Amino acid sequence: MIKALGYAAKHSFSRLRPFEFERQEAGPNEIEIEVQYCGVCHSDIHQVKNEWSNTVYPCVPGHEVVGRVTKAGSGVTRHVVGDLVGVGCMIESCRHCEPCHSGDQNYCEGPNSWLATYNGPMVPAKMAPDGRNMYERDNTFGGYSDTLVVNEDFALKIPAKLKPEVAAPILCAGVTTYSPMKHWGVKAGDKVGVIGFGGLGDMAAKLARAMGAEVTVFTRTKEKLEEAARLGVTGVLDSDADAMRSLKSSFDFMLSTIPEKHDLSPFIDLLKRDRTIVVVGALEPMAPVNNQQVAFHRKSVAGSLIGNLADTQEVLDFCAEHGIGPDIQVIAIQDINDAYRKVEKGDVRFRYVIDMATLRHEEAA
Amino acid sequence: MIKALGYAAKHSFSRLRPFEFERQEAGPNEIEIEVQYCGVCHSDIHQVKNEWSNTVYPCVPGHEVVGRVTKAGSGVTRHVVGDLVGVGCMIESCRHCEPCHSGDQNYCEGPNSWLATYNGPMVPAKMAPDGRNMYERDNTFGGYSDTLVVNEDFALKIPAKLKPEVAAPILCAGVTTYSPMKHWGVKAGDKVGVIGFGGLGDMAAKLARAMGAEVTVFTRTKEKLEEAARLGVTGVLDSDADAMRSLKSSFDFMLSTIPEKHDLSPFIDLLKRDRTIVVVGALEPMAPVNNQQVAFHRKSVAGSLIGNLADTQEVLDFCAEHGIGPDIQVIAIQDINDAYRKVEKGDVRFRYVIDMATLRHEEAA
Repeated sequence: MIKALGYAAKHSFSRLRPFEFERQEAGPNEIEIEVQYCGVCHSDIHQVKNEWSNTVYPCVPGHEVVGRVTKAGSGVTRHVVGDLVGVGCMIESCRHCEPCHSGDQNYCEGPNSWLATYNGPMVPAKMAPDGRNMYERDNTFGGYSDTLVVNEDFALKIPAKLKPEVAAPILCAGVTTYSPMKHWGVKAGDKVGVIGFGGLGDMAAKLARAMGAEVTVFTRTKEKLEEAARLGVTGVLDSDADAMRSLKSSFDFMLSTIPEKHDLSPFIDLLKRDRTIVVVGALEPMAPVNNQQVAFHRKSVAGSLIGNLADTQEVLDFCAEHGIGPDIQVIAIQDINDAYRKVEKGDVRFRYVIDMATLRHEEAA
Repeated sequence: MIKALGYAAKHSFSRLRPFEFERQEAGPNEIEIEVQYCGVCHSDIHQVKNEWSNTVYPCVPGHEVVGRVTKAGSGVTRHVVGDLVGVGCMIESCRHCEPCHSGDQNYCEGPNSWLATYNGPMVPAKMAPDGRNMYERDNTFGGYSDTLVVNEDFALKIPAKLKPEVAAPILCAGVTTYSPMKHWGVKAGDKVGVIGFGGLGDMAAKLARAMGAEVTVFTRTKEKLEEAARLGVTGVLDSDADAMRSLKSSFDFMLSTIPEKHDLSPFIDLLKRDRTIVVVGALEPMAPVNNQQVAFHRKSVAGSLIGNLADTQEVLDFCAEHGIGPDIQVIAIQDINDAYRKVEKGDVRFRYVIDMATLRHEEAA
């Protein structure tokens, strides 16, 4: 066993604090990673606070992980010691279901679905058809820690052109927005609307723009309009009724990145006929949708969950090639509880990324 | 002007009663039709009762109209006097917008959208961008009448193999279910779920089966299970939790025909990954959908509105070719208020079709 140090929540109401635990040594097809950076995702907060009613405690969050390979099992062929690798939301899947065979591990239909980087299997034993847990782990500990051990297939290559701290959020925020744009065929010249302008919205806007789309971001925060202008995209206050009216039936694709229940109706109106609005931010019951609005132009309201391994590698490479990445602010792990409060207020457009060296420093203290 | 007789509601709370009115004579590109049969659609009731808050009174419903051409304008080339023709939900569209150019008149984006067979333009002047009404008619009077005058392009050919009274409901119930199945690519071998087993559900089940799909109908009414068996399709009570569980993630396509607000969640669970549930029955705010359910398998919730003229002709021909059609019960116009009550109770699986000869008979009396 490896002695590991991380930051964990013990209960839904507790702050994150230092937490010592053990990880299994790397098996033949696994690698051990020294974590350098870990992004802070809104999901981390949902999970820590048990807002999806499925949190296993203690909870060590973190699924935007970048680090160096420090050990490679005997059967490992994809990576060598010293490689800079990334780990996103998944560390294993059943590998036998139709989605896994199609390379869509993020839609794994195995009895326990995929194994999340933290908080264990997506379908825990008590919800599994046969009451079993094929991964034999109820809980997993994420990237708010000094080390990670994962199967080599679930570690991505970090392109040399990307700074490791910038690459981290691409592993979740990047692929979560890239994957649906790819799936629904966003292409050069398309008019793309991005709803919500936080960590996901920032990545969505940059990716869509790099794909050649004409991008509009919708925000409730006046200050973010300047950020949009700085990015070279159009910013619209969703409270601006005139602007909203003038954009009616003009978008080829819309992506909602708002991380909580919200009303899609004002945005459905902005879609062209036969087009789709995809919700990636909120994983909960949404406000009711009026089918008259949807049916009268044969529109679709869809959802999408992160992205598969191939998409994750693709978006890392795409960002490196186009010189784009999230706007980040690097913080020490000791500032994590404060960062959570700011993210919850929703006024943070950049992504917080934890410099995990600060954890080791504290440990030594 | 032509003297016409129909059945109309004067207010949202009044019963349908005989109503004398005038129609314009057929213009150069129009035909005059002697109405033989008119189907009773749940929309007729919604409209008569002003449940969509847009009814123009007096309201003469009826958009499943079959009759003989009695007069043809000088420029008419598609039909000749004596032809048996059908008229569905639309009698005109703007003919200039992108959907009209694509042949999707039912998604017309002209300033007043399409002109409905009854109740006038879909977008009335007061809701139109420039406050105008390109059709210069605020109200239109539907098929619960002895005559109809329409542009020849909006009249379909009734195939000789179809009885006129059977053809009538195909003009709305038929195309409303056929069009989305065609659009979303239902094909032989697909597993198709039909939710609700009234007039639309009956047509959806028969059409899907004729397309070679494996069909399951979902109903809340035990008695309808026998009807399903008689049709050669599987019937499931949506209250049967075991049956519902056993069907999880197994459908390629689902069509909801329930004509009022309902919860889609139990049915979203039954879709395979990446598949779509289309709502055609309810044109109103739906129960909230949980995006976790949708996003975890990249599903879509879509809507669809009737179908275009080409689809309408296609479904008439398809029904003739496959020897299918709605289960109907022919009634006299004098029984219409009673029929409405029964349809509203939701226990009617067949489609009521009014024999319009009974109207003329009454008039003579």
